[in-house]
Amino acid sequence: MGKTIAEKILSMKSGQDARANDIVIADLDFVMGQDGTSPLAIRAFREMMAKKVFDPRKIAMVIDHSAPSPLQGVSELHHQMREFAREQGIYLYDIGDGVCHQLLPEQGHVVPGNLVIGADSHTCTYGAINVFSTGVGSTDLAAGLISGKLWFKVPETFKFVLNGKLPHGVFSKDLILYLIGDVTADGATYMAAEYTGEAIRDLSVEARFTISNMAIEMGAKCGLMEADDKVIEWVKQHTDKPFEPVSPDPDAVYAKVKEYDVSNLEPQVAKPHTVDNVCPVREVAGTPIQQGVIGTCTNGRMEDLRIAAKILKGKKIHKDTRLVVAPASRQVMLQAIREGILEIFIEAGAAVVTPGCGPCVGTHNGIPSDGENVISTANRNFKGRMGNNKAFIYLASPATVAASVLTGKITDPREFL
Amino acid sequence: MGKTIAEKILSMKSGQDARANDIVIADLDFVMGQDGTSPLAIRAFREMMAKKVFDPRKIAMVIDHSAPSPLQGVSELHHQMREFAREQGIYLYDIGDGVCHQLLPEQGHVVPGNLVIGADSHTCTYGAINVFSTGVGSTDLAAGLISGKLWFKVPETFKFVLNGKLPHGVFSKDLILYLIGDVTADGATYMAAEYTGEAIRDLSVEARFTISNMAIEMGAKCGLMEADDKVIEWVKQHTDKPFEPVSPDPDAVYAKVKEYDVSNLEPQVAKPHTVDNVCPVREVAGTPIQQGVIGTCTNGRMEDLRIAAKILKGKKIHKDTRLVVAPASRQVMLQAIREGILEIFIEAGAAVVTPGCGPCVGTHNGIPSDGENVISTANRNFKGRMGNNKAFIYLASPATVAASVLTGKITDPREFL
Repeated sequence: MGKTIAEKILSMKSGQDARANDIVIADLDFVMGQDGTSPLAIRAFREMMAKKVFDPRKIAMVIDHSAPSPLQGVSELHHQMREFAREQGIYLYDIGDGVCHQLLPEQGHVVPGNLVIGADSHTCTYGAINVFSTGVGSTDLAAGLISGKLWFKVPETFKFVLNGKLPHGVFSKDLILYLIGDVTADGATYMAAEYTGEAIRDLSVEARFTISNMAIEMGAKCGLMEADDKVIEWVKQHTDKPFEPVSPDPDAVYAKVKEYDVSNLEPQVAKPHTVDNVCPVREVAGTPIQQGVIGTCTNGRMEDLRIAAKILKGKKIHKDTRLVVAPASRQVMLQAIREGILEIFIEAGAAVVTPGCGPCVGTHNGIPSDGENVISTANRNFKGRMGNNKAFIYLASPATVAASVLTGKITDPREFL
Repeated sequence: MGKTIAEKILSMKSGQDARANDIVIADLDFVMGQDGTSPLAIRAFREMMAKKVFDPRKIAMVIDHSAPSPLQGVSELHHQMREFAREQGIYLYDIGDGVCHQLLPEQGHVVPGNLVIGADSHTCTYGAINVFSTGVGSTDLAAGLISGKLWFKVPETFKFVLNGKLPHGVFSKDLILYLIGDVTADGATYMAAEYTGEAIRDLSVEARFTISNMAIEMGAKCGLMEADDKVIEWVKQHTDKPFEPVSPDPDAVYAKVKEYDVSNLEPQVAKPHTVDNVCPVREVAGTPIQQGVIGTCTNGRMEDLRIAAKILKGKKIHKDTRLVVAPASRQVMLQAIREGILEIFIEAGAAVVTPGCGPCVGTHNGIPSDGENVISTANRNFKGRMGNNKAFIYLASPATVAASVLTGKITDPREFL
């Protein structure tokens, strides 16, 4: 009986014949923590009387949620991370370096066939390059730091077969929002999502990250894709580490399979206050918007910035609307400068913030005020997510956000493309 | 008997023969509030039952201290400012536009001979372009918003005659730090400082702003300079408003005159925790530095960024040191992008934050952690100024900050120039 990608990776990493619902203990290829979770993991590491991490070259801590620090208490947490990184010789990405989920693939830390944990919900992002990566809590992170291993219940797999081509002006963000809306926020709980089909193959690697990033928003443990030539080339551009891509067996057993034809998909938006509260942009077009956000681990990459800049070029954002732009990493910011894209944003009236999570997690860099509507390229719109539980967050593609800040209301980006 | 610049401007604006220590009521040419002070002024405006500001084209509110907002409470204050600006038709500078003291001259709101109040201590900045400008509290701001007038006690004048030329690697920031160290923090309390002499005439207008900006740090009400050809040209580049420069009479009466020869001045630094605790960089060279800050209303202009970039170009900041760069305005950020300067900072390892006050006022964007040493181009180093009263702040020129973040310790910039 064949295996899914998840079963294959967990078999390789555990040395067992791992099948859905088995419990395995598996070797980790990379372990990551951010500034919201690392300090607790460091404390647990100390409490477990550990002296040394299992392998400093397989661990990174990233200061991205509050970078630079907006509060004295947060500064102390950052200090603990810097001290721990120095002591242990692990990778530290400090203020201005970017978002963890951009940095791990971009800096070549994770490659196809890897098993990776990160103390952040959206660690599933690297599934787009064929990595079984998943979010864990701080104590699991501590266990991983010490032993380089973690136990997993092998997930069943939910296969999404995406046929057809996305129409002009419709992006991978629209697709994943649509899928989440369709299967709901717990439609794939503790399953491995496997995304496949012509629509995926058509996407750039950057666009695929957006889909895997949001696998957790349908409850999935990870959001896996095969490593086709595009992925292999992309990874080789970022590292010379050897790797072995993992494909599902033709006779793999899936707990669920759903097919879609994406040819007629429209731009989508997730309405407040849940990610699966999805509808076509058309249905909420005209809703006034006070703040737009372009960035985050979901949509802060070059391709995202290019699309938004194409719409904003030579124009000014609406006078009653603000725009916060957070490039996903130092590399992305540099490239955006070199391509003239940052200039377009700033001329249009954007406030460009330090590469990092920006206002997505509500720690700083653009907390909305009471009653305001925000349209954001981020991945979560829960009440209070952006630091104010009286604000309303709509999630959409960079194109939709760019179009909406120009008009001051939710707008179908195809009007501008 | 002749008059000083301060007496002349207050005479013109009050229609009286204003002499030192007189009380006058004078017409205001421009009135400004920032996000730390405007909300209180708006409340006072409402409490005074006012309906309309005296002249919406002579008033600006600037969101610069916490831009973009790091806290829900702050977002509400910003909201009040936006609503008030919309209601009254006054200028509003929102997130990403920059620091008030950069914007008022840059956007042509203030011109030589003007009388200006701002609810911010460093409103004295515009003295460099021959403006009697001074900081007021929020209720005085409210009175100004309503009536366009304010009462002043005409200040006595302290004249600083600065002879000689600044040596290579020594900047206007070093000069003003030296002067403050010499006369102390209350050496010019409630006096108008008048800065004159060859050393001032040699400086660019941008460099002069740094000196007038810090007049308040010697207790002065304003920090005035004459409008020479450089100033007149600079102002004409920024506005086509008519203006009449004001020079002191040859027989003006000064309460105090001090002459200096700047030819042998060395780079200076203000040590924790007072601005007048000044010594040559040499005396504290080698002190470890965890964070550098380049920006603020004191030193966030193009000339400042160019000097710092010259030192940082092609190099990396020290691994145990962070660098926060806050361009003074949207225009400055755009220009820094166009000149390749932002790229130099980001490649060197800086975290570039949204144009605004940055971490100077401790509201966000780089609060130091306990026990850390910060070297900053800002104007204040009081305990807790940057949001942590257990941190230590050294004030210096952009060149000294750039050199220090490269070595990780306080460094004389002449080693790099």
